[in-house]
Amino acid sequence: MAHVTGTLVLLRHGESEWNKANLFTGWVDVPLSEKGRAEAARGGELLAANGLLPDVLHTSLLRRAINTAELALATAERSWIPVRRSWRLNERHYGALQGKDKAATLAQYGEEQFMTWRRSYDTPPPPIEPGSEFSNDLDPRYAFLPPEARPATECLADVVVRMLPYWYDAIVPDLRAGLTVLVTAHGNSLRALVKHLDGMGDAEVVGLNIPTGVPLRYDLDDDLRPVTTGGQYLDPAAAAAAIEAVKNQGK
Amino acid sequence: MAHVTGTLVLLRHGESEWNKANLFTGWVDVPLSEKGRAEAARGGELLAANGLLPDVLHTSLLRRAINTAELALATAERSWIPVRRSWRLNERHYGALQGKDKAATLAQYGEEQFMTWRRSYDTPPPPIEPGSEFSNDLDPRYAFLPPEARPATECLADVVVRMLPYWYDAIVPDLRAGLTVLVTAHGNSLRALVKHLDGMGDAEVVGLNIPTGVPLRYDLDDDLRPVTTGGQYLDPAAAAAAIEAVKNQGK
Repeated sequence: MAHVTGTLVLLRHGESEWNKANLFTGWVDVPLSEKGRAEAARGGELLAANGLLPDVLHTSLLRRAINTAELALATAERSWIPVRRSWRLNERHYGALQGKDKAATLAQYGEEQFMTWRRSYDTPPPPIEPGSEFSNDLDPRYAFLPPEARPATECLADVVVRMLPYWYDAIVPDLRAGLTVLVTAHGNSLRALVKHLDGMGDAEVVGLNIPTGVPLRYDLDDDLRPVTTGGQYLDPAAAAAAIEAVKNQGK
Repeated sequence: MAHVTGTLVLLRHGESEWNKANLFTGWVDVPLSEKGRAEAARGGELLAANGLLPDVLHTSLLRRAINTAELALATAERSWIPVRRSWRLNERHYGALQGKDKAATLAQYGEEQFMTWRRSYDTPPPPIEPGSEFSNDLDPRYAFLPPEARPATECLADVVVRMLPYWYDAIVPDLRAGLTVLVTAHGNSLRALVKHLDGMGDAEVVGLNIPTGVPLRYDLDDDLRPVTTGGQYLDPAAAAAAIEAVKNQGK
């Protein structure tokens, strides 16, 4: 039997106001909806019910992930654990699509282009216009990044490239220390991490969906490889139902 | 004119359920009351209205301080800043008084003993019984501390001694880096810090009260001494009124 180092728990944020409104979000800092807040608390209940108590939290810099962690940890009575945040866990930057209606975009550009932007591994949407409404040029949380390191659009391959340094440098050391590590992040930053963990191919990851609000547990061996490929959802039935719902977004 | 390094902002948590119920709290992890949550949000409004935007947060391990920070920073649109937590910012450990009614304690022991426990600089209450209801022996957040380092009761002098290493090792480096540092903590851990900053004597600090929910700004010179003794409350009128209210607690 493989030796287990730390335990990794991935949690995708609950529904945001823009998920509900069916808009492309990306790096726009949209709050959780009431449903999203309930999903986050439910995630915390699942952690507590399974005795899966995080020792440390890693989040993105976006409030829908931060608030999901706050609500889940408050429910699990673990608000006091150490926290680290990084832009490298942010959602994929959706470029010029940020703020656009998904259904309208689908109608305007057709299913092929729409699905390419949403799902292809290496085709990013057009870059966002500097200074436009949903650009992050003036956002103080990214001010420390030189302009060339600040994304203007990203495909999933770009997310893998910018996420992995944080995995190796910040999350892996906590796992090596034997900690239970909670990562609250986004559909695409978590897809990038799961692709890496499960050794999925570029084509295979296109079909991967991660449900909101259901903790996904990975036990990892000494080489930080999953003991069980795909990990284990704490509520498999809810996860399966939520994955179906994600698939139908924008339809 | 003194050179200003970083800017320090102290914020005492809003009313907790046990403040409201007039019980001694100490290290018991009591949630904020609805009023306390509103005070926290108001603290965030004051930060935003004064353009005093924290770059980093330091909190205790107790949820009333953690949640105060979460609510204040959400209101000020700064949920994404880095966070550090330490037991060294916790409220004074109230020993055997934890969970006791303040008015009943006053009636039982008389005003002199009551005020000695509440206000003397160097007389701690009796230690809490190990294994008793409000002891922290089994609390996982303190499990890393060897037993001899885990307080069973504290006077304010004890709080100064355990708080100062965190000031020097964790907060001062952030101030030296030129950051605006928010510390959300407790009546007595903040009294300990203010005593240190303002160079107050042991007798003088007995009369010091810090209001809940009103940010207290300290600009510090190169020697980390306040440019203005006592700092500046962002809402001086509210601070004065709240200080009066604290004085009358237990009366």
